[in-house]
Amino acid sequence: MKAIFKHKAASGAQYGKVDIPIIKKDEILIRINHASICGSDMPIYNWTGWAPKRIKPPMVFGHELAGEVVEIGQLARDFNKGDFVSVESHIFCGLCYQCRNDQRHVCSNVKIIGLDTPGGFSEYAAIPARCAWKHTDNSIKDIASIMEPFGNAVYATLIEDVVAKTVLVSGCGPQGLFSIPIAKASGAKTVIALDTAPYRRKLAEKMGADYVFNPADKNIESKIRKILKNRDGVDVVVEMSGNTIAIDFGLHMLGFGGRFTAFGLPSKKIEIDYSNDIVFKGLRIYGIVGREIFKSWYKMESLLKSKAVDPRPVITHRFRFKDYKKAFKVMNSKDKKCGKVILVP
Amino acid sequence: MKAIFKHKAASGAQYGKVDIPIIKKDEILIRINHASICGSDMPIYNWTGWAPKRIKPPMVFGHELAGEVVEIGQLARDFNKGDFVSVESHIFCGLCYQCRNDQRHVCSNVKIIGLDTPGGFSEYAAIPARCAWKHTDNSIKDIASIMEPFGNAVYATLIEDVVAKTVLVSGCGPQGLFSIPIAKASGAKTVIALDTAPYRRKLAEKMGADYVFNPADKNIESKIRKILKNRDGVDVVVEMSGNTIAIDFGLHMLGFGGRFTAFGLPSKKIEIDYSNDIVFKGLRIYGIVGREIFKSWYKMESLLKSKAVDPRPVITHRFRFKDYKKAFKVMNSKDKKCGKVILVP
Amino acid sequence: MKAIFKHKAASGAQYGKVDIPIIKKDEILIRINHASICGSDMPIYNWTGWAPKRIKPPMVFGHELAGEVVEIGQLARDFNKGDFVSVESHIFCGLCYQCRNDQRHVCSNVKIIGLDTPGGFSEYAAIPARCAWKHTDNSIKDIASIMEPFGNAVYATLIEDVVAKTVLVSGCGPQGLFSIPIAKASGAKTVIALDTAPYRRKLAEKMGADYVFNPADKNIESKIRKILKNRDGVDVVVEMSGNTIAIDFGLHMLGFGGRFTAFGLPSKKIEIDYSNDIVFKGLRIYGIVGREIFKSWYKMESLLKSKAVDPRPVITHRFRFKDYKKAFKVMNSKDKKCGKVILVP
Amino acid sequence: MKAIFKHKAASGAQYGKVDIPIIKKDEILIRINHASICGSDMPIYNWTGWAPKRIKPPMVFGHELAGEVVEIGQLARDFNKGDFVSVESHIFCGLCYQCRNDQRHVCSNVKIIGLDTPGGFSEYAAIPARCAWKHTDNSIKDIASIMEPFGNAVYATLIEDVVAKTVLVSGCGPQGLFSIPIAKASGAKTVIALDTAPYRRKLAEKMGADYVFNPADKNIESKIRKILKNRDGVDVVVEMSGNTIAIDFGLHMLGFGGRFTAFGLPSKKIEIDYSNDIVFKGLRIYGIVGREIFKSWYKMESLLKSKAVDPRPVITHRFRFKDYKKAFKVMNSKDKKCGKVILVP
Repeated sequence: MKAIFKHKAASGAQYGKVDIPIIKKDEILIRINHASICGSDMPIYNWTGWAPKRIKPPMVFGHELAGEVVEIGQLARDFNKGDFVSVESHIFCGLCYQCRNDQRHVCSNVKIIGLDTPGGFSEYAAIPARCAWKHTDNSIKDIASIMEPFGNAVYATLIEDVVAKTVLVSGCGPQGLFSIPIAKASGAKTVIALDTAPYRRKLAEKMGADYVFNPADKNIESKIRKILKNRDGVDVVVEMSGNTIAIDFGLHMLGFGGRFTAFGLPSKKIEIDYSNDIVFKGLRIYGIVGREIFKSWYKMESLLKSKAVDPRPVITHRFRFKDYKKAFKVMNSKDKKCGKVILVP
Repeated sequence: MKAIFKHKAASGAQYGKVDIPIIKKDEILIRINHASICGSDMPIYNWTGWAPKRIKPPMVFGHELAGEVVEIGQLARDFNKGDFVSVESHIFCGLCYQCRNDQRHVCSNVKIIGLDTPGGFSEYAAIPARCAWKHTDNSIKDIASIMEPFGNAVYATLIEDVVAKTVLVSGCGPQGLFSIPIAKASGAKTVIALDTAPYRRKLAEKMGADYVFNPADKNIESKIRKILKNRDGVDVVVEMSGNTIAIDFGLHMLGFGGRFTAFGLPSKKIEIDYSNDIVFKGLRIYGIVGREIFKSWYKMESLLKSKAVDPRPVITHRFRFKDYKKAFKVMNSKDKKCGKVILVP
Repeated sequence: MKAIFKHKAASGAQYGKVDIPIIKKDEILIRINHASICGSDMPIYNWTGWAPKRIKPPMVFGHELAGEVVEIGQLARDFNKGDFVSVESHIFCGLCYQCRNDQRHVCSNVKIIGLDTPGGFSEYAAIPARCAWKHTDNSIKDIASIMEPFGNAVYATLIEDVVAKTVLVSGCGPQGLFSIPIAKASGAKTVIALDTAPYRRKLAEKMGADYVFNPADKNIESKIRKILKNRDGVDVVVEMSGNTIAIDFGLHMLGFGGRFTAFGLPSKKIEIDYSNDIVFKGLRIYGIVGREIFKSWYKMESLLKSKAVDPRPVITHRFRFKDYKKAFKVMNSKDKKCGKVILVP
Repeated sequence: MKAIFKHKAASGAQYGKVDIPIIKKDEILIRINHASICGSDMPIYNWTGWAPKRIKPPMVFGHELAGEVVEIGQLARDFNKGDFVSVESHIFCGLCYQCRNDQRHVCSNVKIIGLDTPGGFSEYAAIPARCAWKHTDNSIKDIASIMEPFGNAVYATLIEDVVAKTVLVSGCGPQGLFSIPIAKASGAKTVIALDTAPYRRKLAEKMGADYVFNPADKNIESKIRKILKNRDGVDVVVEMSGNTIAIDFGLHMLGFGGRFTAFGLPSKKIEIDYSNDIVFKGLRIYGIVGREIFKSWYKMESLLKSKAVDPRPVITHRFRFKDYKKAFKVMNSKDKKCGKVILVP
């Protein structure tokens, strides 16, 4: 089959022939309909950051994928050929303390598809049956790979009820952009979105943010305080950027007793005002990785299929596998002129 | 009346005559039975850290106090002369968003007794009636001032259920010491206590810790991992020290999906491994200030009066007001040779 | 002043002169802008059910009211003359166990305005300052009395998060009708509304229910099961009718592990299939009385003022005080041809 | 092998030879060390109530079992021959909405061992590997079958935090008896236990109840109110009896805003004062079936192995399989002169 794979320990990737994966007994084989590029695929492509330490080329990467079931392992329950599935990228063991305490998303033996096992930028992928989510209609087949990152946003945004809350979404990459309508559809009073890139601020407006600002604006704090009127801060920060200044600003803008969601990943240790911003404020901080399996998926399906949320404006580009270099170039663009980028075999 | 007061903008305090406070309509006057010294009284006494910025001498300080009601403002409901009360040190406004959303402990207009209003190191104190907690028996009258810090420990330890959890108490000052039996009495499986001071490790043993270690021991991690057997980390860290290394160690020792309570106060900004220790682990972090008013108080009363917890070993010293210099000297001792220190008029 | 009052122990009421109430120190005097009739005012008017046991004529009744502050008791904090307020009808004591544990709505010393103290069907009413909710703009002044019943619906519907849930609203009186858009605006997947009265089913449609059925339809169960597809029952029942058959049907239609909100009041003891419908299903049942003070009020304000919910279609009638007999006649109509009925001085 | 089995559609059972079960791929074969009799085994033995409708003789019954793994299906992960296991009796499907939303205990396709599949009153039993709980030490091997009912008590008692709560345990069969020390070890302030049988009241005392009463005592309410002093009711009722009068009394004794756990099973519909006892009180009622899989099991293991709870006084009888008639006779005794009864091959 044809696949985009990390060919060697250097920048870039190659598009070419690789073997079709052979499924294990508890796996299913999927004919990929499309896959999408995650921000965390970029260190792999660019061979920067954590990637050289973790990835062992040659390796097919990509962990946002969707497609049709074409082969079923003998122990894989509940699937038929022809089923259309999205994929949970966290391969949870099912046996550890976390898995047996309803925290599969932080399974202590987790493997990630496309990092630890062959991924989805290929014509076929083998995935454990327990990681497949079956679609019951065709309404979002063409964008089904985005359920994975959409699930990050659902979990990150709704880890506490947002009804009547003022929510600050910090960073408008795809997950941040998804968070905006998720919060609105779940009862948030006001959603304020921040991004330094004009292209992404425009997307944030499309996604329904009540206010969109450039966090580099030197009056940003007073602009937000004006919205808050007599309140001491926002109720919720959904931090999706991983930017050090943004994390600090988010903690600073939270009101007493507020909630902070930590999803974006700074590349190194950061300095925080622990006493003033965490202790004295009485904050609750939630580190978010993955999605609740499968609690988040039921919420995702409902929000997407009830039309409460329209995720389509976030999908800004679509390329054929063979044009993968263009796709990664768009993702690498300095001024972030993209939302979610989809790759089609 | 006689009182210990911060006489001027310099180290130390004075013991001498001051006016008896005149109560406002919503206040009660208390004849102090005893008061106790909090760690946060030490910057005031020593005139270090945040104290010079906040405290305006001359000022009676001390915010852990208990005594008898001797005068009642005309709007102060529900008290009789002779009632014996402990005191909630956070004067909450009752009208702000936080107060009207059951978060009085982070009232956005809070004033602290002994910091913002005259405190308890005196023969009499005026306090708002809404901050008084009436005792219904005599069982803990002699140590009633410690309900305030005991409440910190109750709130910090029990912000989530601890049944079957392995709890790491980091720092064995009075609040850390209280946390040990609070966790045990509430169903914790194992309590591991850490302190660098031998005197306090001995107290931790007395308070019922299953394991007590010196965190400076270079094998500390492997000693704890041996207790954890096949688990990836502890379930709960109750961080009471405010020490930068301890905070880092606590975050590091937590298992995936664990809970971290941030109570101890570092004196400046600190560096943390946000990506690895918060996000990837999927932690929940709770900043704790004060006590839930009055949810924590009902728990405190039950734990203390049902004998589930015996707080007395923590009270290591008792001085007359006139010997206040000795009391503060003990509190300042380099090797922390004290638990809670009580002052009696 | 002029008021509608229960003149004697018999059916009906009288409209005539009564004394303007004299406020206590912790009260404010409100010039009523309008008041609305609650279903629970009907036993008082009709002198049926519980009313003769509780109400002592002569007595001004009515507990849904709104108006302008014209006089302020000396202990009433935070108000100015001219403030426009809605009213929390539960006069909570603030001192009991429930009040001090964030459950003011079930204060064990509660008094209800218009039942235990003079009510709102009058030109002026005296209410405790702590029960007044100040409006910050004019957007819902003309319907501000409905915040009280709207709050019932907010608390009843949102006592657990409804994101992605299928919600069955059983009974489309005003509170049931409010529950429909509250659930939708807070992320519910599907809202199914039931009422036997055609007029109210039409209102339910206007309020945005996805499906509206007559529960007397003999195929009602199969109609609902068709919507549920492969699920074993609905996720949530919001029981607002108090009808015995409806309660039984609601419990029956809930899926395993579902949630039942009990708000409607049957007039006598009822029979339930406790083993099969509660225990074996592993249900959670919440008895709902009043509103969370003031948590529900913040949610109410947000939902109403952010336009997430439009309550106006529920208000079907508006009468002058002097036409009160017409108003109560509409409320008494057999075929329930009304939603909320407002009375204006 | 030898087994106790329901031989025909009539009262009683037979002890004799049956085939050793042949395990499926996802099952393990257990050599039974011992099994115990559940109250719900009695309708099967006596052929009363629901049993004739559900059970299809010939059938080995018994669903509280423990033993050694002697054979392992090829898909059964994580077990070795010689492992000693207790058994979760609920065979959950793992695929339904409930299973994928962390509510396996109310799996909508659940099968119960010993009811729907051959049970544990036999020398060997085949159980799905996912229902086995591996012991890591020998401390409770001799009583390991009781983890199943102990788990009911853990889930029923701790579905909400009990710290500082007054808990009324209604019915002192084995699960009620277990609930007493579970509540005490988890921070309950006071545990009041009720049973009409003197033998069981004595056991309740042994298990650490603070007060033990006969609910048939005509002064029972005033006796309890005396303990409650100025509180309006108990905080928590753990209803383990299924007795109609007891359920009514439990609801009646709860204070405003209290919590009621519904575990005991009345044999027919019951009448309740829904308006006064559920709605006006603002109660939370939890139907409890089974145990949380495996959240409850981790709690059970901790409480049992940390010695926080000693369950042994509840085990009052031990018989050989061949003496099964004596065992069932004890269980059938009118005056309930037994706690848990264990059967040994």
